Amino acid sequence: MRPASGYFFEDYAVGQRFDHAVPRTLTQGDVALYQALVGSRNPLHCSEPFAQSIGYPAMPVDDLLVFHIAFGKTVPDISYNAVANLGYAECRFVQPVYIGDTLHASTEIVGLKATSSGKTGVVYVRSSCFNQRDELVLTWVRWVMIHRRDTKATNIDLKPYGLVDFAAAVTPNAIAAPRGAWATPACAQATGSKKSWDDIEAPDADHSFANATVTTSAVSPILHAGGLTIDNTDHTLATKLYQNTARVHFDAHHMKDSRFAQRLVYGGHIISLCRALSFDGLENALTIAAINSGSHLNPTFAGDTIYAMSVPLMKWAVSDSVGALRLQLHGYKNADPNSPTFVGTSPEQHVLSLDLTVLMPRRKP
Amino acid sequence: MRPASGYFFEDYAVGQRFDHAVPRTLTQGDVALYQALVGSRNPLHCSEPFAQSIGYPAMPVDDLLVFHIAFGKTVPDISYNAVANLGYAECRFVQPVYIGDTLHASTEIVGLKATSSGKTGVVYVRSSCFNQRDELVLTWVRWVMIHRRDTKATNIDLKPYGLVDFAAAVTPNAIAAPRGAWATPACAQATGSKKSWDDIEAPDADHSFANATVTTSAVSPILHAGGLTIDNTDHTLATKLYQNTARVHFDAHHMKDSRFAQRLVYGGHIISLCRALSFDGLENALTIAAINSGSHLNPTFAGDTIYAMSVPLMKWAVSDSVGALRLQLHGYKNADPNSPTFVGTSPEQHVLSLDLTVLMPRRKP
Amino acid sequence: MRPASGYFFEDYAVGQRFDHAVPRTLTQGDVALYQALVGSRNPLHCSEPFAQSIGYPAMPVDDLLVFHIAFGKTVPDISYNAVANLGYAECRFVQPVYIGDTLHASTEIVGLKATSSGKTGVVYVRSSCFNQRDELVLTWVRWVMIHRRDTKATNIDLKPYGLVDFAAAVTPNAIAAPRGAWATPACAQATGSKKSWDDIEAPDADHSFANATVTTSAVSPILHAGGLTIDNTDHTLATKLYQNTARVHFDAHHMKDSRFAQRLVYGGHIISLCRALSFDGLENALTIAAINSGSHLNPTFAGDTIYAMSVPLMKWAVSDSVGALRLQLHGYKNADPNSPTFVGTSPEQHVLSLDLTVLMPRRKP
Repeated sequence: MRPASGYFFEDYAVGQRFDHAVPRTLTQGDVALYQALVGSRNPLHCSEPFAQSIGYPAMPVDDLLVFHIAFGKTVPDISYNAVANLGYAECRFVQPVYIGDTLHASTEIVGLKATSSGKTGVVYVRSSCFNQRDELVLTWVRWVMIHRRDTKATNIDLKPYGLVDFAAAVTPNAIAAPRGAWATPACAQATGSKKSWDDIEAPDADHSFANATVTTSAVSPILHAGGLTIDNTDHTLATKLYQNTARVHFDAHHMKDSRFAQRLVYGGHIISLCRALSFDGLENALTIAAINSGSHLNPTFAGDTIYAMSVPLMKWAVSDSVGALRLQLHGYKNADPNSPTFVGTSPEQHVLSLDLTVLMPRRKP
Repeated sequence: MRPASGYFFEDYAVGQRFDHAVPRTLTQGDVALYQALVGSRNPLHCSEPFAQSIGYPAMPVDDLLVFHIAFGKTVPDISYNAVANLGYAECRFVQPVYIGDTLHASTEIVGLKATSSGKTGVVYVRSSCFNQRDELVLTWVRWVMIHRRDTKATNIDLKPYGLVDFAAAVTPNAIAAPRGAWATPACAQATGSKKSWDDIEAPDADHSFANATVTTSAVSPILHAGGLTIDNTDHTLATKLYQNTARVHFDAHHMKDSRFAQRLVYGGHIISLCRALSFDGLENALTIAAINSGSHLNPTFAGDTIYAMSVPLMKWAVSDSVGALRLQLHGYKNADPNSPTFVGTSPEQHVLSLDLTVLMPRRKP
Repeated sequence: MRPASGYFFEDYAVGQRFDHAVPRTLTQGDVALYQALVGSRNPLHCSEPFAQSIGYPAMPVDDLLVFHIAFGKTVPDISYNAVANLGYAECRFVQPVYIGDTLHASTEIVGLKATSSGKTGVVYVRSSCFNQRDELVLTWVRWVMIHRRDTKATNIDLKPYGLVDFAAAVTPNAIAAPRGAWATPACAQATGSKKSWDDIEAPDADHSFANATVTTSAVSPILHAGGLTIDNTDHTLATKLYQNTARVHFDAHHMKDSRFAQRLVYGGHIISLCRALSFDGLENALTIAAINSGSHLNPTFAGDTIYAMSVPLMKWAVSDSVGALRLQLHGYKNADPNSPTFVGTSPEQHVLSLDLTVLMPRRKP
């Protein structure tokens, strides 16, 4: 049984599996609140007729709302005593989730590596989220720095156990086309932009895809207009909606004595804000197929304003009507990529770097 | 295609039409969140049995929530580069909207007038909002001061083009009775007040209605009890719920360098707060039939407390069970009309003056 | 008819009855927003399949959300001019409420007692909440200190009228088992804990139950991990969602001149936060059957962080699969019961003491 104070590094073993508690039925309320919290405007998630016009039976729930709910389920067992969420990999959005679906999640410990400080260790986990028919809807890997219970341990074994290295990206053959046909005229009217997959300037994906070094110097970044300022209630409402219990987000009294002296914003909230901001410039990036890799580069706090910029990495056709675009989504705090003074921005203002694969409608052939 | 930085004054021409992006399905979540954000208590929008008892098939969505959603649709094309929203006219709520309906909106540029500064111009627009059956649910005129792209223009043409003048009010014959019968006893139990249309002291509307100068000196204002303090999360959640993208509301980093040095509250949020406050004193003003005219007199910011007062202007019978009341709804910040010191309030505290026509049940004949 | 400024102590008489206004249909939006505002994780209220697996037709609405909605209905007639909510008693949750149900409430004045100051009096009321079929869902007693209209009264009659004393607790025979069977394995998977009613250390209830002095010295308190910091938007959104109009929560301009110099958090919000926090440690306390008694010991304000601790008082079997646990739920501000320095906490930090009866699944026989 889970200890009241959560698990520490020493409690984990490779191969260990957790079936997380608190299944969660998604409702119209979750969808509206998510939209109000992050400012999303993707019509796929807010217009039933549009969703149906491109082949969905109903409005699917925003991919990232599903991610956050699934992630929240894992927190009590995996990251309750986390120092930091170090990275993500191999995240695939396998099938849509609809209002009325009930999600549950499980996690397997796939790797472990102590740190030389003797105070922490890194736990590598694969989590999966299922609907009420036990169909996989989402799977991802993350690695987390966790406190040791015994912080005075000596002679630390620094050898890695299990898997501690992951694919650089989800490969094209692992990404399926959504059902239905993404008719471009319907998309352009609903999203407000005719910029289809064909119009995005990016190198074609090739056979060496998965481990290729991505060269982006030849590609112009897409600067997303607008910025969103975070207040304390925004991020705490979001995180409570996801039933994420990580103490650092909620407990200002406790955090007063931390090195930040205040509550930390949940990193996933920043991902959602950047994704929402990216609608201006990538209006037709209707779904996220994969998060290839990513990390939170700096913490954010209430009062920070978030801006976003996307760098196209590569693209490939998925079906006659759908194309995939792999891109690097960058988030900045209090520094607007649209501003002429942006180049001189300090590295501390770079808060997110996320390698995503999104799906877009193709231009009529 | 819409430029990434939005349209400027020079981009508009009389007769130009925009079919706005991002259709929006209204859900139970929108309705609950709206209520929590503005504090509304009108039972027509929160009690299904009450709505049905007076002739609606289901709870209609709050008129102002519909207005804000429709307004939000127009922002990217019309007021993204707005300096200020100068006024409203000829706004008619044509038919009810229900949970599950999907709204879309379009706008026609009806008038243009440069300003002598050479930095801005005023754009006059008529916007209309339709449901999924393309039935008109709402139409309104507004005029907005917009930045010029070229702020160094000289020899400005100050002649107005198209329509720049509008009816003083929506006339009685343009206002239809809601279907069903507004049985007074049911209303009184649900709203908590027996004060019907018959009990409101206001001059009768006459034939010269539309352009009459309204004399209000003889009528006592209705002082609405209570005040609502705005926090930053309230107004930003509201505006994100409406998918209104006007930067001034969200981006504190950007606004730091504005003359206000902080985020501005969306004017529509003030309208909603005043309408919600007006429930105490006008409990039976069940729907808004028209916004005849109105303007935001001063900006509001987080921390301001809003109070409201209504001045009845005129009234007329609409059907056997329904009467119309035209009133001036005033909003004040940090100055309570109920307070004995209110008379000496500075004009800067007057934030809203809105000429509305509301519908109320008539007393049993 | 209700005066615009609300009722004062002199307006009430024993036996007087109020049928409160503004019936309220509960929606998916209310449920999601409540969860986000208070951080609840009880799977009974967020998983339709789990609720059905233990015998409910659908997810019931959180008991405390029902309480707050019902309480909110009573405010305009009962506590609009309240100085303080002094206590609760005899509160029974009689049957579940579901999404789509419409609640209304009524209150009877059961007791009156002037205070010697001549400025206030205590009003004792029994309120009841009904669904759309007029079935009782919730009933409770509270007593409230109310301003007198005439604060210069002399020769005050200090005799109590009517009922001013209430049962120490709701007796076991007044608490029915929920329908269905609370299968322990299903509960343990959904709640994340195998700690059933059988595992709780508490004295057995005996015949002298109702008026017994509860001895708790022999029982270890259950320390609930975690704390929740309150921001102004949280508690005002919550209170507006409940349509509670008590001015002290919303109107910062007005409260500036109060002895607190700021808005007060609605006491019910503290109850909800403590209940949500108690999930860690009492994961299987699925429903609240009764609030036996309770009071708000100190005010809370935005910025305070709330912690909770439960002391088991007594327990008894309700059916083959369900047991009742009576416990004292304590709430603290800015003082964590899990901290080694907690013992020396000042009494001002103790904000809530609530005597509850909760229902839990029993271990397989």
